[in-house]
Order: sequence, then structure tokens, then C-alpha cells
Amino acid sequence: MFSRVDHIGVAVEDLDAALALYERDFDMSLAHRETVDEQGVEAVLLDVGENHVELLAPLEPDSPVGRFLARRGPGMHHVAYQVTDIDATLDALRAGGLRLIDEQPRTGIRDSRVAFLHPASSGGVLTEIVQPAKGH
Amino acid sequence: MFSRVDHIGVAVEDLDAALALYERDFDMSLAHRETVDEQGVEAVLLDVGENHVELLAPLEPDSPVGRFLARRGPGMHHVAYQVTDIDATLDALRAGGLRLIDEQPRTGIRDSRVAFLHPASSGGVLTEIVQPAKGH
Repeated sequence: MFSRVDHIGVAVEDLDAALALYERDFDMSLAHRETVDEQGVEAVLLDVGENHVELLAPLEPDSPVGRFLARRGPGMHHVAYQVTDIDATLDALRAGGLRLIDEQPRTGIRDSRVAFLHPASSGGVLTEIVQPAKGH
Repeated sequence: MFSRVDHIGVAVEDLDAALALYERDFDMSLAHRETVDEQGVEAVLLDVGENHVELLAPLEPDSPVGRFLARRGPGMHHVAYQVTDIDATLDALRAGGLRLIDEQPRTGIRDSRVAFLHPASSGGVLTEIVQPAKGH
């Protein structure tokens, strides 16, 4: 069902300070940077082998990641698993009784197709599934 | 420095209920199950491609994972990156000024060598580095 961990999503207050940690101290390469208005974040992808770290900084305090930071502080926000057919995967998860945040896939970072599962039926873990765009 | 995401560590209250989610609904294969007395957990590894999910259930409430659950509830606990030479990696991280929980590697699950970095200098993310035992 899942090919690999696509990325770990990390909520940060200061994107440039976080980049210094991941690029300089962890020696990860910056792969992509994008403002995702729909999700209210500026986001960065860094490469770790075939996996990624996604750093998420809120565009404003009253946004999902802004409220997460206010409630819990910076740290791990979600995990994303890679799939090859997100429509079939969503159908299978729905049939298994999992609660979905996104009933249909929407466009994510770097033109991927993404959907979030609700942490209430995923053991408290905000879980995303990602079908990358061709070439990624 | 890091080859890939080795695993996502997830704190759970009920290991068998969590296994039902990951094995049945997420179709992940159980790779290993072990009681790690030193860390006060019963732990399970599931395969996701070349990555893993590590489920951690506390052996008693007064343990690191037990206290995490009391404070934050079930959910993501740490991320672990895979390395080929943990001693050299720890030296490089120390030289970069990162705060380490483990100054020297210790034995982790499935005879790996592991060390944890302190979340205070890792952006609030409890970060582990793992050198797997030969053959894993």
C-alpha cells in the first residue's frame, strides 16, 4: 500500500534558522521551497536519500500550523507515506473504516496529490499519503 | 551524513491495537518485536519499503515513553536517520555544536547502534541516529 516514507513534516517558527540546522548540521540538500497559500505555510523539502524532511512555517498565527505551534511548540507535525495510486489507496483506507480529513486528493507541495487521514483513527499520528508528480 | 529515514518512532498505549492499524489498515509487514528493558519499552518494527515504523509501548508508566504518553498522548515520538558510521557522525554533530543525549552509541533494537540528539538543539524534534546491525 505504501512504498516508503515520503517525508516527515516538521513545524518550525523560523524557516531560515531551521534550514541552518538541516542544511549545515545535518548536511541535507535543499530540494524545493514553496509558499502553499491554501495550507497557510511556507514549506521547504530537503533530501534524505529517497525520503524528505518537510519544514513548515506558518504564514500567519491563525492557520493550522500556527495553531499547532502555539499549542505544542516546534517539532514533528505529521508523517507522509508515498503511494503510486492515491485514489485506490483512499478507497482502501475508507473501506477499512479510517477517518479521512480529505475525502478527495488535493494538490500538495511540488504538484503532488495528497490527502490527510484524521489522527483520531490513526493512533494520534497526523498521517498524509502522497502521490508525487511524475519525475519526483 | 544520513542515508535515509530509518524509522518513525510512535508512542502507543496498546501495542496490539496499534499493530491492528498498521498491519491490517496500512498493510505493513511486521519485521521484529522486542522488549528493550533498558529503554522500558516493548517495541515493534514494521516495514515501509526500506524505512520502518517503530511502535513503542511503555513497560511501566514511570518510563520515558510512559511519561511522554501521560503528557502528550499517543503519537509521533521521534525520527531516526540511518548512518553507516555512527561514531564519525556523532563526532561531526558534536563538532557542529549539537547537544547530544548519548555521548556514545548504545545498543538499540535489533542489535543496532543508536544515539539520541537532544530536541533542544534539534528544533524540538527528538532525533535518533541509527547504524543498523549487519544484514539489516
